[in-house]
This record gives sequence, C-alpha cells and structure tokens, in this order.
Amino acid sequence: MLIIDCHGHYTTAPEPHQKFRDAQLVRIKDSTLPAPVPAQVSDDEIRESIEANQLRLQRERGADLTLFSPRASAMGHHVGDESVSTAWTRACNDLVKRVVDLYPENFVGVCQLPQSPGVPISHSVHELTRCVRELGFVGCNLNPDPSGGHWNAPPLTDRHWYPFYEKMVELDVPAMVHVSASCNPNFHATGAHYINADTTAFMQFIQGDLFRDFPELRFVIPHGGGAVPYHWGRYRGLADMLKRPALDGHVMRNVFFDTCVYHQPGIDLLVKVIDIDNILFGSEMLGAVRGIDPQTGHHFDDTRRYIDALTISAAAKRQIFELNARRVYPRLDALLKARGQ
Amino acid sequence: MLIIDCHGHYTTAPEPHQKFRDAQLVRIKDSTLPAPVPAQVSDDEIRESIEANQLRLQRERGADLTLFSPRASAMGHHVGDESVSTAWTRACNDLVKRVVDLYPENFVGVCQLPQSPGVPISHSVHELTRCVRELGFVGCNLNPDPSGGHWNAPPLTDRHWYPFYEKMVELDVPAMVHVSASCNPNFHATGAHYINADTTAFMQFIQGDLFRDFPELRFVIPHGGGAVPYHWGRYRGLADMLKRPALDGHVMRNVFFDTCVYHQPGIDLLVKVIDIDNILFGSEMLGAVRGIDPQTGHHFDDTRRYIDALTISAAAKRQIFELNARRVYPRLDALLKARGQ
Repeated sequence: MLIIDCHGHYTTAPEPHQKFRDAQLVRIKDSTLPAPVPAQVSDDEIRESIEANQLRLQRERGADLTLFSPRASAMGHHVGDESVSTAWTRACNDLVKRVVDLYPENFVGVCQLPQSPGVPISHSVHELTRCVRELGFVGCNLNPDPSGGHWNAPPLTDRHWYPFYEKMVELDVPAMVHVSASCNPNFHATGAHYINADTTAFMQFIQGDLFRDFPELRFVIPHGGGAVPYHWGRYRGLADMLKRPALDGHVMRNVFFDTCVYHQPGIDLLVKVIDIDNILFGSEMLGAVRGIDPQTGHHFDDTRRYIDALTISAAAKRQIFELNARRVYPRLDALLKARGQ
Repeated sequence: MLIIDCHGHYTTAPEPHQKFRDAQLVRIKDSTLPAPVPAQVSDDEIRESIEANQLRLQRERGADLTLFSPRASAMGHHVGDESVSTAWTRACNDLVKRVVDLYPENFVGVCQLPQSPGVPISHSVHELTRCVRELGFVGCNLNPDPSGGHWNAPPLTDRHWYPFYEKMVELDVPAMVHVSASCNPNFHATGAHYINADTTAFMQFIQGDLFRDFPELRFVIPHGGGAVPYHWGRYRGLADMLKRPALDGHVMRNVFFDTCVYHQPGIDLLVKVIDIDNILFGSEMLGAVRGIDPQTGHHFDDTRRYIDALTISAAAKRQIFELNARRVYPRLDALLKARGQ
C-alpha cells in the first residue's frame, strides 16, 4: 500500500522567493519601479527547505508521496491585479516543479491558478494547461473567493466557471476547492475562512446542477469537508427540502473530502458518516496547525495516526490512503503505474 | 427535570404580520407611500399558528419550554434602513410577547435587535432594554453580519460592539450569535451562512480579548457551534499557535453551543469533545430542516432523540436539557423559580 497525502503545501519556500513577492507588493504601491523578476533559487536552497520540513515529516510519519502545491495562504489572489497574480502564480508553480524534479518519488505537483477578482476564469486555463501538460502536475487548487473574504465572485455552480471546468474535464484533473488568505478582519484564514469556504462550496454543489452539466468533474473539499460531515443530517435534510437529489446519488459522486481534521473524534465522525470512497488521506502539512496536541503528545496535523487508529478494514484504509487518490487524480495513477507502483 | 429548548423561532407568524413586512418592502422602493403600521393580529390567529406547529411539536417531542425568538431568516437587517429595521424588529418582538402571554408555561421570549448595516450597535440598546425590562424577555439574538453575507461589520471582539455588551452584562442576559438571511448568492442561508457565522464568531472569540474585558458576557453559538466541535483539534491547536489561552480556560467560560445538529453521530461528537457544562438543548424548530430522516424515520430536527440516545449520566442529560440553560439565562431561572419550578 502507498500512503498518498493529497494535501501538502510548499509553506517553507526559500527566502528569495518571498523577496520576489515582497518586491511585487512594493511595486503595487509604486508602479514606476521595474517589474520584479522571479527569484533565483538554488537546488541546495530547495533541498534544505524540503528535507528539514516536508520530507522529514513525510518520512517520520510514514507517508510515501505528497500532492504538493504552493502555499495556499500566500496565493493572495486579492493582491494587486491580474498581472501580479499571473507572475506570482507562475513563479510558485515553477518552484513546486523544482521540488518535484528533485524528489520525484516524494512529491507530485498540484498548481495554483492566476485568479484575480473580476477576471474571467478562462484566463486561468492557460496556466492549468501549462502545469498539467508541460510540468506534469495532476491537479489544481481553485479559489472560490479570489477577493480574499469579500465573496463577490459567482458561486462555483455558475456558468462563470464553466470554461475552466471544460479544461479540467479535458485534462482529466480534479480541483481542490481552496481559498487563500483573508483580507476581511472577520475571518481568520485557517480558523474561519478556510472552513467556511469548504462548507459554502458544498452547499453550492447541493443547490446547483453542475454535475449534471459536468458528470466527470471532480472536487476535493479540504479540511475534512469543513462543517459538512458534522452537519451531515442538515445537508441530507436540506437536499430533501430543496427537492435536490439525495447526496449519495448526486454531489458525492463528484466531491471528495480530505482527512485534515486534527483530532481523533473528528476523523471517527468523518469515516462514520461519509462513504469510504469519498475520503482521501491528507495532512495539510506544513500547514495551519504546527503544534503538538498536549492530549496525545503528537502533532495535531499527524493525521495518519487518526486513520491508523480507526477500526475499519485494511481494504478501507487502503482506499483512504491510496486508491481513492489514484481514482480522483487519474494522472497520478498513470504516473505511478508508469513507475510500476 | 425540565426540558428547555433554547433555540426556537416564530417561523409560523400569522399572515398579517408578513403583509406588514411586505408593505415595508414596497415602501423601500416608493418612499411616497405612507409608513405601514404593524399588523392587527388576533389571539385566535396566534393560537392557530402556534398550536398547530411549535406547541404541537413541543408536546409530541416532550419539551417543556422553548426560548422563543422571531424568525431568524426574516430579521433581514440588510433590508432598508435603520427605521425599517426598527419598526420590523419591534413588531416581531411584540408578536413573540403575545405568544408568551398566551402560553406562559411553554414559551419565554428572546428578542431580535434593530440592527442595520453601518449603524452603531448602541442603537440596539433601547430595544434590548425594552424587551428585557418591559416584556420580560431573557436574551437576544445578535447578528454579527447585519449586511446579510457581505461581512463588512467589525468582528464581534471589536470595541464597536462594547456599548451593547455593557447593557447585556447590566441586564444579565446572554446573546445567541445568529445571522439572518443571506443576500450573497454564495451563501445559502441555513446551509452555509448560518454555519459559517457560528464558526467565524468562535474564531473571533479565540483571537480577541473580549472575555477579559467582559468576564460575565455569555454567548450561545447555535447549530452545535458550526464547524467548531468537528474541528476541535484545529481550534485547540490554533489557540496554542496564536499564543492565546487554552480554550477551556478562556472562550469556553463564556461560550456555549446548542444541540441543533441533525444526526446522531454529530451529537455524539459534540458531547464527546465539548464539556457538558457548555451544551444547551436546542432544536431550531420550526426551522431550517423540516423533513423526516429516511434513515431514522424521525424528523431531522427532533434533537431530543439524539440526546436521549446518548450513553451519558442522567445528571449530564439534566445539564444539557435544563440546568445549563438556567445558568446561562439567569432571568429564565428566576422566572422558573418564581413559579416554583
């Protein structure tokens, strides 16, 4: 059995990369400055940033492979304009590709998109295509709220998003629904904005006809599906009340939850109410919560322990750890098969 | 043991009351019309609306008393201006008072507030005082987002809200944190906006110093605390990472969750991770989800069944059903004691 972590971010990118971003931010305020160019980052800097962090933890915790994307909170689609987002996104994705090239056994790329408030999502098709076809990435992170907490884009079920979905289907890649930082003081990023976005997206999928129009479209809703599994009765009831199809014959054909839920009772509930086929192992590491749980003595985000502790069959665990990810990310499956895995 | 439902709404108010609202909405578009006056509603109309609905279900499900407030989704603080909100709020609260007067054994009032986007919260102090001192209400519903899904008010921990908190403490009444309808197409009201608001408020409380400034202030976060109990590890970890006090010595001294979680596994988790002292029985009835769960044959919102099914002590159940509500709502306790209950 492989252990595939479907949710990892390059939160430890070398400093020159952040300096490039800082230069972008300065130039937003002073457009007379020259456009900054992406950082020169050495292989050694990348190795250092990965080996001391994600790779070390991957090994310590016994995961084989991480679907690796740029730092989500730093996507910052609300910062600057489309040209800023495009340059930053390309640099972030290129850096993830460098990590993948250095550690092809351990990391597989998932891309950020050059979204920007008010900009048609069709403008993100090119970067998705580049990352999948040229860089070998297997999925993307789609931000349902590029405004960073003002929520003024149309719902994910709106035709606004369809040009992008068409390309996702054509390339056979899923999207993780993932917001970035919040510039709304009401929403703490990892404590409210992330979880709210997960919950919001799921309810949009219940209301809309997206999966009738795109039966092959697949979304991973991270952070254990936000509030959804805890309120599974509410969502089953709302689907019924709104005269929408039952969840298991509708949304749950196309939507999957990861296991980024940082305590045993939460994972117990997730596995109890959600079909095993819809759960993908993920840790969000190095991510939102870096500390050690005093109640267990282990890191909050060491989510493998919670799954290991479940009293479910070995076959079910293999679904969560490996097979569901291979099904949801067919390009990952193809890549693994080409390696004889 | 009394069974006190801390979360009920007058979702079945007689038609004339809705016609008053409709007249308000028409006048927003045509200010040359005369200001509408609140509806004349007969006692019989009120009896009919209550006996066939909330009172019937209260009896069928074996609850004794409901903390009863105006329909949350109809508060509509984002509709019209402050004068519209004030007139509507007063009419809604007066109607709840009529219900309480007709069925004093079964209903105790909780008030709506005349909030309006951009209007200082001090303008809600008068209606709170009127409802508590003159109408005998025991709590209020405070909307953290009077904009209806645009989230442009300051966080609940901001000094913006302090004048209202001072009055809450003076009157010794808690607030349920409860948004109203969403005018943002991203957020389904009961499927996303409500749950997001619960999660958002909790994270704000972690970040802020509100309970240092108001050690006696009490909030009920409805809908089982939004996503919070499911992600309890995340919130414990974030408090630690943000160098905030541990939840049990800080936020959980002042914050309580209701049991509006519409399936057994959700209630099981709630009671497993949250201290019994912080859980108040609630049903949100007649509310968000009115149907029957095909998996159980019972109504989704018949939350008493889930608590009855818990393997916790009788003393713990009494905490949830009665004693916590009496502690969090001291004016309810006084009222019950005066009746010899």
